[in-house]
Amino acid sequence: MKAEILCVGTEILLGDIVNTNAQFLAKELADLGICIYYQTVVGDNPDRLKEALKIAFSRADLVITTGGLGPTKDDLTKEVCAEFFNQKLEVNEESMNYIKEYFKSQNKNMVKSNEKQACFPKDSIILKNDCGTAPGCIIKDDNNTVMLFPGPPREMIHMFKNYAKPYLQKYQKDIFESKTLRICGIGESSVEDQIQDLIEGQTNPTIAPYAKNSEVTLRITARASSKKEAKDLIEPLKNEIYSRLAPFVYGEDDTCLEFEVAKMIINKNLTISTAESCTGGLIASKLINYPGISSVFNEGMVTYTNESKMKRLGVKKETLEKYGAVSEQTATEMAMGVAKNTKSNIGISVTGIAGPGGGSEQKPVGLVYIGICINGVTKVKQLNLKGDRNRIRNITAITALNFLRLECLNI
Amino acid sequence: MKAEILCVGTEILLGDIVNTNAQFLAKELADLGICIYYQTVVGDNPDRLKEALKIAFSRADLVITTGGLGPTKDDLTKEVCAEFFNQKLEVNEESMNYIKEYFKSQNKNMVKSNEKQACFPKDSIILKNDCGTAPGCIIKDDNNTVMLFPGPPREMIHMFKNYAKPYLQKYQKDIFESKTLRICGIGESSVEDQIQDLIEGQTNPTIAPYAKNSEVTLRITARASSKKEAKDLIEPLKNEIYSRLAPFVYGEDDTCLEFEVAKMIINKNLTISTAESCTGGLIASKLINYPGISSVFNEGMVTYTNESKMKRLGVKKETLEKYGAVSEQTATEMAMGVAKNTKSNIGISVTGIAGPGGGSEQKPVGLVYIGICINGVTKVKQLNLKGDRNRIRNITAITALNFLRLECLNI
Repeated sequence: MKAEILCVGTEILLGDIVNTNAQFLAKELADLGICIYYQTVVGDNPDRLKEALKIAFSRADLVITTGGLGPTKDDLTKEVCAEFFNQKLEVNEESMNYIKEYFKSQNKNMVKSNEKQACFPKDSIILKNDCGTAPGCIIKDDNNTVMLFPGPPREMIHMFKNYAKPYLQKYQKDIFESKTLRICGIGESSVEDQIQDLIEGQTNPTIAPYAKNSEVTLRITARASSKKEAKDLIEPLKNEIYSRLAPFVYGEDDTCLEFEVAKMIINKNLTISTAESCTGGLIASKLINYPGISSVFNEGMVTYTNESKMKRLGVKKETLEKYGAVSEQTATEMAMGVAKNTKSNIGISVTGIAGPGGGSEQKPVGLVYIGICINGVTKVKQLNLKGDRNRIRNITAITALNFLRLECLNI
Repeated sequence: MKAEILCVGTEILLGDIVNTNAQFLAKELADLGICIYYQTVVGDNPDRLKEALKIAFSRADLVITTGGLGPTKDDLTKEVCAEFFNQKLEVNEESMNYIKEYFKSQNKNMVKSNEKQACFPKDSIILKNDCGTAPGCIIKDDNNTVMLFPGPPREMIHMFKNYAKPYLQKYQKDIFESKTLRICGIGESSVEDQIQDLIEGQTNPTIAPYAKNSEVTLRITARASSKKEAKDLIEPLKNEIYSRLAPFVYGEDDTCLEFEVAKMIINKNLTISTAESCTGGLIASKLINYPGISSVFNEGMVTYTNESKMKRLGVKKETLEKYGAVSEQTATEMAMGVAKNTKSNIGISVTGIAGPGGGSEQKPVGLVYIGICINGVTKVKQLNLKGDRNRIRNITAITALNFLRLECLNI
């Protein structure tokens, strides 16, 4: 089965909202093993919608639409689709009663224009909307099927999961199973260099690399007749990638770097405190996003001024005078100081120049030192970053967490 | 000029990422007065990309692509577009030098595959990439133009604003001018209620409301023959909105709440320190995103444990025992304590239950207290939030900053 996603709505076309519906549907369909080769967005315009439907059905046998099921004159997706399938809309009593009940339950008045939301082609399958007034539907003939969903994501997602997915599952023979490996510490080209032969030799499973925010992900996807068979196909390839890229693989599937670092610290019974200058609380804030971190996170300090570095962390005045606040020596004393003053196993420190001001020839914007003190032993990493303040701070936080992860691996 | 947006990338097609590029470009093009009737997404497949290009150019004379300019074999947008325009790719020395320099400055090795990023059709206009290795380009013939942008949003946005927008502006007769008002502290429906008549009466300028992350924006857009004329159309409507919604309007155009708060503190010659529990450094980190904050930001403390609340902030043991860590009283002592201990004019504190665990019937997940001490006077705000840990922490940080902003207005 080949499918396409066709999102209808001038608010998407003009960029007033981001099209999260397409993402949700794309992911769900991919998981069902339904191939998608195109997504299209068209405004609330019947002629252009008809044109888009025609193109979509020239390439696919299933088209999934979102939007245009509302009560206003602009909402024409159902009308256009019915016409495309040469079918007429008529009132569906069950839907009409449902919509009436819905308004009653919300203590709102049903207006005349809502009645068109209860009209469907006679032979269509109606998809109940448990979260709003616009039911969806499935219209089909011998060759083609169109599934219509409302535009509001909450309504669409509920309808898809509860009524459309079971319908689609019946038509799929194969199962698709994916495993995502999350990688930090090496760039996309290096990752690809190291697994070039695997990428070139891919058939089933396939490997899809993707880079974002200083991380690389590799998604391994297998097609098989059962979940077990798919997993058995994925396993050896996954192990091969691990053998080449470990220790840079920090996690699998739905996780993130800070969660894996937090779990690692908790599992190893280590306590942690942070001392941040240019990242200004970003590292603490990321770690604290992990529920359960409270058992190991002692304290976070944002020591922006020299005074606070001396007072809170015990950085020596001479160190600041001789080497400056942004130096290997200061980063070392900050990490050691925060660990000591908070009685933590781990102290992590950051000092750097995030810009746009404050840089010099010797110490340009983007120069950052990260210190990590674990049980009294301190290591420092120097970064030379490019980009704006926001980027420098974010990459520093990610790099610091990954540095910590790599150091903790050996404990 | 009719344009279409064509986003290339299997990661969008399969729903691995949401297509924010299309939204950004759609908005920018709408602002320029360039009509868009379709957006399309296609995977990293040259045949289907060619097909999509053909369809797009049957409906439009300008196609804007994102993605597929990377160094890997999957990245084929430039190759396919050049072929479509019957042009050949050749090495552009300037780009090659730039890419080499880029790698050098990042202390990374340039690999062979990066070289193809420096190849362009001879007559194309190259769009510099100041944020990454993949330059974009404009390829055209007598009738059609294609503009190619890299996929990473940061690179694309910078390139569009700095190099592509000025190019497109030259071709537009009418000028579109927008003014965005940024609002925090009241919800979208309240905003709309208060300006209902203005929204209904809109023609030129238009008003587009949009809500996201506890903020509402109103975008006023005027079409005119000159920048001055457009501004004159916007001004009275803007003033009318201010007269109804101030003090909730915190800023205009490209700014954000934390920047406005930071500027306000700096302008008023106030110093600030933060004491955060459940937000864990988020407020400090947001403030520190503002360049220049160093002159007024004294210290940030992430006092997650009771011990640190007592030791660093002077919260009384009896207060914690009698009222608990999440209480109005603790928030008050935290705000006062951090201001006092760091000798700051302003102390801002947060204590709350971000969940998922830690809630009780009396103190459910989502209960948060924000304390603000300004020159010795402390006020506390109680929040009862819904949602997951991430949402609770983010809304708390935004609400705290807005609370601070409103309090500072009166100083």
